Amino acid sequence: MCTVCLCSTHRMRGIVAFYLTYLLCLILGIICVALVVHWNYSYRGGFAWDGSAKHFNWHPVFMVTGMVVLYGNAAILYRIPLTWGHNKLPWKLLHAGLLLLSFILSVIGLCAVFNYHNANNISNLYSLHSWVGICTTALFTAQWVMGFSTFLLPCTPMSARAFIKPTHVWMGGIILVLSIVSCISGINEKLFFALKENTNGTLPYSALPPEAITANSLGVIIVAFGLVVLKILSNQIWQRPETGYEEGVYQPLGYDGS
Amino acid sequence: MCTVCLCSTHRMRGIVAFYLTYLLCLILGIICVALVVHWNYSYRGGFAWDGSAKHFNWHPVFMVTGMVVLYGNAAILYRIPLTWGHNKLPWKLLHAGLLLLSFILSVIGLCAVFNYHNANNISNLYSLHSWVGICTTALFTAQWVMGFSTFLLPCTPMSARAFIKPTHVWMGGIILVLSIVSCISGINEKLFFALKENTNGTLPYSALPPEAITANSLGVIIVAFGLVVLKILSNQIWQRPETGYEEGVYQPLGYDGS
Repeated sequence: MCTVCLCSTHRMRGIVAFYLTYLLCLILGIICVALVVHWNYSYRGGFAWDGSAKHFNWHPVFMVTGMVVLYGNAAILYRIPLTWGHNKLPWKLLHAGLLLLSFILSVIGLCAVFNYHNANNISNLYSLHSWVGICTTALFTAQWVMGFSTFLLPCTPMSARAFIKPTHVWMGGIILVLSIVSCISGINEKLFFALKENTNGTLPYSALPPEAITANSLGVIIVAFGLVVLKILSNQIWQRPETGYEEGVYQPLGYDGS
Repeated sequence: MCTVCLCSTHRMRGIVAFYLTYLLCLILGIICVALVVHWNYSYRGGFAWDGSAKHFNWHPVFMVTGMVVLYGNAAILYRIPLTWGHNKLPWKLLHAGLLLLSFILSVIGLCAVFNYHNANNISNLYSLHSWVGICTTALFTAQWVMGFSTFLLPCTPMSARAFIKPTHVWMGGIILVLSIVSCISGINEKLFFALKENTNGTLPYSALPPEAITANSLGVIIVAFGLVVLKILSNQIWQRPETGYEEGVYQPLGYDGS
């Protein structure tokens, strides 16, 4: 086989491998959202915005959906080969837009827990889960503002973009790691609160009732989703090409390298 | 200034930046070990191997020391420029030896919690913390065995080493992430168990007594240590050179590229 054919076959294999991994990522993300809604709807009494325990239930739903699933999908947007053959600006706007939506969902998720605590005279921000969680949201806010200023404001010079990009990419992965740390510690904490012996007619957490299996599985799927996203981000052959991309179908039209 | 001088200055800056980051890593690691010992010695009653609560206290000490601090330091060993100027084999043995010690400490830490649970009729492996933790230890075991077979057994072909190395490096970082997830969820869980209102004469966790501040700070320092290690691992300019390294002092003598 000629060198061009071999190179093309190799590239096609890389793209097929990417899309299979991406499909796995989408499936795990959908399972995460379905499981966190199912847990809180079927076992924790559903949802409300009235200061009751149902008010709190929005917290895990919005944090998992916003800070993990939507955030993870936004982070790997540039790795999708489909996005390489076009002007980068619409994809930049989609990346920033998805992350803004992720941020808004996270803020609603934080409001849910603060409102619930305040309505029930429970202290805020004392647990290690809350310390890590609030630092993660603060880092995410700083990252979004810095990303917007650097990569979307036309006045930012290309040299500044090139200088900040590696830090922006690294911070993106780290914020996902911190989100996962927050989610796992939060689910663990909630199950110890909710599943106590001789209260609410539930079995204790240690007896692994169906709710515990559901929420523990949610935690495991969140970790699996995060690992798939981190794998996609770290695999250099799946990165958006920075220089000229030979084949017409993937040629980044109007690609500005930023 | 001539090109050679500029290149040399750039390299020296990289090495100085590495050692400053490495120093930070060492300091954070020492603080982690000191804080986890201080927490369990000063607030949790100290240590014993008799099935009592003091028996459990070895669990956080050995897991933080083994799976985080020692593991993290072993992971970044090849990034230390001092190790580049010699035959790689002694550093490989040190890397494997430190990780074996880290594994042994983790197994002792696991024995501490299993023994304590069994002596007090407490179920094992039901919490999300324990699920993530046991998976992390299983992955670490598989990683060590695979690493030993691939990189230390002389019969393994170089092509297999080159093929497995990226996965080995990636898995190394992921296991550290999972260790941090386990530690944060575990510290959070322990504080909710230990600091309850009107028991043991302690203030509740929500009132943030000195023990809560100590252990929460331990969690934050563990996260900071992990981020510094991940930064060192991800920074490509700090990687051990795979090809010829020009300057005599850093020339990898007998370097086999494996």
